[in-house]
Amino acid sequence: MTVKKISLEQILNALQAVSPTVHGPVEDVFADHIADPKKTTATTLDWVNSIKTNKQEIAEGTPAKVILADAEVVYSDAMKAAGKTLIIVPNPKMAFSLVANEFFVEKEEPGIHPTAVIHPEAEIGPDVYIGPYVHIGKAKIGKGTVISAYVRIYDKVTIGENCFFKEGAVIGGAGFGYEKDSQGNRFRFPQIGGVIIGNYVEVGGNTCIDRGALSDTVIGDHTKIDNLCHISHNVDLGRNVMVIACSEISGSCVLGDDVWVGPNTSIRDHRKVGAGALLGMGSVVVKDVPADEVWTGNPAKLLNR
Amino acid sequence: MTVKKISLEQILNALQAVSPTVHGPVEDVFADHIADPKKTTATTLDWVNSIKTNKQEIAEGTPAKVILADAEVVYSDAMKAAGKTLIIVPNPKMAFSLVANEFFVEKEEPGIHPTAVIHPEAEIGPDVYIGPYVHIGKAKIGKGTVISAYVRIYDKVTIGENCFFKEGAVIGGAGFGYEKDSQGNRFRFPQIGGVIIGNYVEVGGNTCIDRGALSDTVIGDHTKIDNLCHISHNVDLGRNVMVIACSEISGSCVLGDDVWVGPNTSIRDHRKVGAGALLGMGSVVVKDVPADEVWTGNPAKLLNR
Amino acid sequence: MTVKKISLEQILNALQAVSPTVHGPVEDVFADHIADPKKTTATTLDWVNSIKTNKQEIAEGTPAKVILADAEVVYSDAMKAAGKTLIIVPNPKMAFSLVANEFFVEKEEPGIHPTAVIHPEAEIGPDVYIGPYVHIGKAKIGKGTVISAYVRIYDKVTIGENCFFKEGAVIGGAGFGYEKDSQGNRFRFPQIGGVIIGNYVEVGGNTCIDRGALSDTVIGDHTKIDNLCHISHNVDLGRNVMVIACSEISGSCVLGDDVWVGPNTSIRDHRKVGAGALLGMGSVVVKDVPADEVWTGNPAKLLNR
Repeated sequence: MTVKKISLEQILNALQAVSPTVHGPVEDVFADHIADPKKTTATTLDWVNSIKTNKQEIAEGTPAKVILADAEVVYSDAMKAAGKTLIIVPNPKMAFSLVANEFFVEKEEPGIHPTAVIHPEAEIGPDVYIGPYVHIGKAKIGKGTVISAYVRIYDKVTIGENCFFKEGAVIGGAGFGYEKDSQGNRFRFPQIGGVIIGNYVEVGGNTCIDRGALSDTVIGDHTKIDNLCHISHNVDLGRNVMVIACSEISGSCVLGDDVWVGPNTSIRDHRKVGAGALLGMGSVVVKDVPADEVWTGNPAKLLNR
Repeated sequence: MTVKKISLEQILNALQAVSPTVHGPVEDVFADHIADPKKTTATTLDWVNSIKTNKQEIAEGTPAKVILADAEVVYSDAMKAAGKTLIIVPNPKMAFSLVANEFFVEKEEPGIHPTAVIHPEAEIGPDVYIGPYVHIGKAKIGKGTVISAYVRIYDKVTIGENCFFKEGAVIGGAGFGYEKDSQGNRFRFPQIGGVIIGNYVEVGGNTCIDRGALSDTVIGDHTKIDNLCHISHNVDLGRNVMVIACSEISGSCVLGDDVWVGPNTSIRDHRKVGAGALLGMGSVVVKDVPADEVWTGNPAKLLNR
Repeated sequence: MTVKKISLEQILNALQAVSPTVHGPVEDVFADHIADPKKTTATTLDWVNSIKTNKQEIAEGTPAKVILADAEVVYSDAMKAAGKTLIIVPNPKMAFSLVANEFFVEKEEPGIHPTAVIHPEAEIGPDVYIGPYVHIGKAKIGKGTVISAYVRIYDKVTIGENCFFKEGAVIGGAGFGYEKDSQGNRFRFPQIGGVIIGNYVEVGGNTCIDRGALSDTVIGDHTKIDNLCHISHNVDLGRNVMVIACSEISGSCVLGDDVWVGPNTSIRDHRKVGAGALLGMGSVVVKDVPADEVWTGNPAKLLNR
């Protein structure tokens, strides 16, 4: 990656929404990379995690000249003597993420790889990235969305803006619904619904989101789904839902906003999980879970509220 | 999708095997789509699920003119007045699936996508669909089978007729068997077997079925495997086995006909699961399971017979 | 596969490191295949598993002329009369694996498939196989490594020698780390680290190994990861670690050498698992696990030492 000098002014512009306060030098101040704490140098953009108990010590001890911290850190004589610039923000980790993602994380350039196979009636918004070997049906993809290699998007899938799909995700495949015939052999119930995905949704590598049977599978804005998850037909996920890796959400489940689904969790079909509930790692959820409760175990039970 | 008017005659032809009985009008009767109950119109092909307690009410209340129901629904005056046609069948959900799949579900047209990489000695039957970026070795694929994008089929894999493989499935990869050398490093035990898959088998997205070590991994007719499952080397699945998403079946397991493997289940290697057994969601099966028993939990135990 | 006659001399050469002892004929002795025990013939390379209780009986009963066994098997009159050649080695299963893999298992020929999309600055070592539709960024790949179809390797990934990647593996994708903004919406924490993979590492089909956030995810030499596993950002796996199918290892976990992770196990983030520990199938590991202990269950607890 070529070195990019990012000035204090650029950093502050990126943080406008959180009204940063600056202490120390403001002229010719810049950072040119982010780094692991062990590799921090004078030009690293550094930050002090609010959960630490020795925040002042970290801010004073870092070799970095530009530091994001919360208001419990004071601009000390030591920092002044070292010529440091301290930027006070409500949530330094979030502020760091904002600035780092804007300036120091490489992004895919918008464009469609020539190997992508795309239905002529697909509607692809502006500034979309479509990687090698992608296969897209008669779907809609909103502005700024990134579709990585080997992602399959079926007909009747609608994807919002600024979404991110990792490699191998399968969106809109036929759901796993069968009916026995008179010989006892199973025969697929028709699966003609679609998938509706909001804005700022992220979907992990090799994750599968099946389309609804007769209606749609729905994924709300800002919901993030990790690698190797299975979202069955007719599932309805709210906003800001987190589904951690290897989880399985069975058919027609409804999860409210801000639900946290721990790694390797399973949820039985038709269950409802209320907003803000947290399902611990490895939970096997067979009952409805009320809002804001923490459930865990196999079978999952209330741990606390 | 272009609208297709399907006549009562065509519907009844599709249902010949289950001897339907018709009440009400038979002339100029048709349906032109299927739909979610909330979106049912006069020309929806509708059906009444036999598990409902208010079947008569549903049959009378629907705006649809053509309705599939079981013999507990009677052709009432209200239905007559509304000009409805009632088709009595033993299993309306199955009858609906049959008709809907034949007329109202889009299927891949047979053909081989030009990007597929196929071994010159592979044997591909008639009416097979092979999607983009498929990679097939010296394998046999039976009539009418659908192979979706990014599916990998290795040498020594034999697939029957009318099977369906979703994107990213890996069939016949080397099994996970190792032996320690004198330095304690693991070295792969030879994996030279194949995979034999029956007819009407369905395999989900990103599911992996490893080949046998020295003999074959076997998947029986009509068995359905969901997304993101792992079927190890030398596993033998019977007929009509259902393996739900994110399940793991370890090496050399033998599952009888009609076994139901709930989501996110694991089965220890060399275990036998008798015909008709049901393994509940999240089961961790470390013992043999007798036929027709229901086991669940971690470790899985008998729930009932 | 064309038949290859492998002479006793070639077999003994392959076993030099374990100092084999030979009894019986040595002239014109050969094997030309390996096979399932049920299909053994006179020219099968056969072996007697040391865990069997009737080893002598197996060695005498097999129709094969060349047999690998441990020192508890004696070269009997019956074997002499049958003209058998008995090769005594410390670990017959390992010796069989060595010889069979060298002579009787088909390998990919080194080469790069023309459909692979590879960054011009990627460093690809000699004798590497890169299959169809592979997508490689600015990464390094060591000598003799096999990269199967649809594998995605991101920038900043370093892979050692003689590794093996099955189809659909995603190596170096962005980790699942988020921070809430002032509206409660999650925003990705920067993920700019890499992945460092040692020698003789094997990675299963559709398995995902995320890159570190600010530093690297590390996989030690000889570690084997099965199909459909998730290795999160900043995980550090030692040497000879075995991760069985469908397992989930959360962010920043550290696993020592020779740890065995049973199928469908989950490990909470930041946990340490000591060298030689064994995690049983379906374990949900929420605490640190000391070296050489066996833990199992949900939540996982000590079973024995």
